[in-house]
Amino acid sequence: MRIRRSNMAAMGWPDCAKSLKGVILDLCGVLYDSGEGDGVAISGSAAAVKKLKESDLLLRFCTNETQATREKFVGKLQRLGFDISVSEVFPPAPAAIAVLKERGLRPHLLVHDGLLNEFDGVDKTNPNCVIIGDAAENFSYKNLNEAFTVLIGLANPVLFSLGQGRYYKETDGLKLDVGVYMKALEYACDLKAEVIGKPSSTFFQSVLNDMGLQPHEVLMIGDDLVNDVGGAQQCGMKGVQVRTGKYRPSDEKHPTVKADGTVDNLAQAVDMILSQRAH
Amino acid sequence: MRIRRSNMAAMGWPDCAKSLKGVILDLCGVLYDSGEGDGVAISGSAAAVKKLKESDLLLRFCTNETQATREKFVGKLQRLGFDISVSEVFPPAPAAIAVLKERGLRPHLLVHDGLLNEFDGVDKTNPNCVIIGDAAENFSYKNLNEAFTVLIGLANPVLFSLGQGRYYKETDGLKLDVGVYMKALEYACDLKAEVIGKPSSTFFQSVLNDMGLQPHEVLMIGDDLVNDVGGAQQCGMKGVQVRTGKYRPSDEKHPTVKADGTVDNLAQAVDMILSQRAH
Repeated sequence: MRIRRSNMAAMGWPDCAKSLKGVILDLCGVLYDSGEGDGVAISGSAAAVKKLKESDLLLRFCTNETQATREKFVGKLQRLGFDISVSEVFPPAPAAIAVLKERGLRPHLLVHDGLLNEFDGVDKTNPNCVIIGDAAENFSYKNLNEAFTVLIGLANPVLFSLGQGRYYKETDGLKLDVGVYMKALEYACDLKAEVIGKPSSTFFQSVLNDMGLQPHEVLMIGDDLVNDVGGAQQCGMKGVQVRTGKYRPSDEKHPTVKADGTVDNLAQAVDMILSQRAH
Repeated sequence: MRIRRSNMAAMGWPDCAKSLKGVILDLCGVLYDSGEGDGVAISGSAAAVKKLKESDLLLRFCTNETQATREKFVGKLQRLGFDISVSEVFPPAPAAIAVLKERGLRPHLLVHDGLLNEFDGVDKTNPNCVIIGDAAENFSYKNLNEAFTVLIGLANPVLFSLGQGRYYKETDGLKLDVGVYMKALEYACDLKAEVIGKPSSTFFQSVLNDMGLQPHEVLMIGDDLVNDVGGAQQCGMKGVQVRTGKYRPSDEKHPTVKADGTVDNLAQAVDMILSQRAH
């Protein structure tokens, strides 16, 4: 018996675009590639963001960016030509600060120098937990050893990792991300880190709450199959992967995560979404 | 029904010392604590090694030391007062070089500067595998990223880790060991490293072959519960842990590895062994 293809795909990509109420975009690898200075915008992405903003879809940005304060990296994106404001962007650091307050924890920070200001108002004396972000060059042997020494000295060691990415793409090549150092400290201290950021469902849900939408009404578009697409799907959203940023062809044969759709770039994704909704 | 304690312990520590033919000692944390300069000898250990050498027991040293060539670290131990020679010592680097030859592999090295000479005769052009050792300060973000870039660019990435220790003790505190960076690269590249060194049974067996003894005839003494004691037990030897070096009280309640005996230090272990054999 033949099943009509249009029915099979009815709830899939890109047909699902018809019933969407909102879109969440990842930043690095979707809007731009990071690197020296501001990095470079990905061709067509600025125009695509503009089209989404002019549509009836709600738009938010969900990122594991932890190399700078929100103000700094939103400023960078504006300079690259993107229509984006701080209130539309959800990174892990503010979510981490909320968790610290809730649980009365004082962090030892192993993060990028650019992120330190986000933690200005946070008590860091006599630390009883460790927070790691994408510290890049700050991931020296000395600094990792220092974070380890704090953790191993605690009766109940708590490690927060701002994301769990393996690597990301900069203009001069792939770079190791925070998840790699999370695994390092997990092994050193024989503990399990708490991830704050994508792919945590709690984190995605906080963005949905801000939008006032249900997961099935929202599509996530990212370049990271596991953290963007897989995380969004776990949370009940559809997830589409772009073939920019850290995308690798092997992602399309991943053993556990299957994107609802794979597109060449954000411009193509947005054109497909808007053309579905035009019918 | 009461079971007589002497029967229960008949095959255990220290009774097993009666039938031993050889002893294998770990170096760092058993003979000495590493640190600035040569580090410091652990009290009573030099005399204990001397007593073992004067006994009828065969003696070898099995170490995951990869910060220096054998000649260098054996020289250090001699300066610290130990009667020890290069031919009695089994570290991972020479075992790794044998594996490279056997499999026609050319390594990219992320190791301590002090170890580089061991690999002088090895072809390192156009690398098709990565070897990591206890590189200490060489575990910079830049160097780890470089090793990652080699691995991620290979169709069949091969990572050799010279040991898998979590941390070791230096005179100024605990230091992260190679296993931590092995886990980091395993996660980054989604692969499983091949461990050369303790606790690999292949590695322990190469020492037993050199001694011409069976596993049940040999006792391993180390400060690392998992890699020294657990590794030796997996190989069929008895394993005793010393409460020096990286020993932590929680080791005595470890969920999976139980030492055959735990002693304060090497001096006490050797006295117990020799007194059992005197009866």
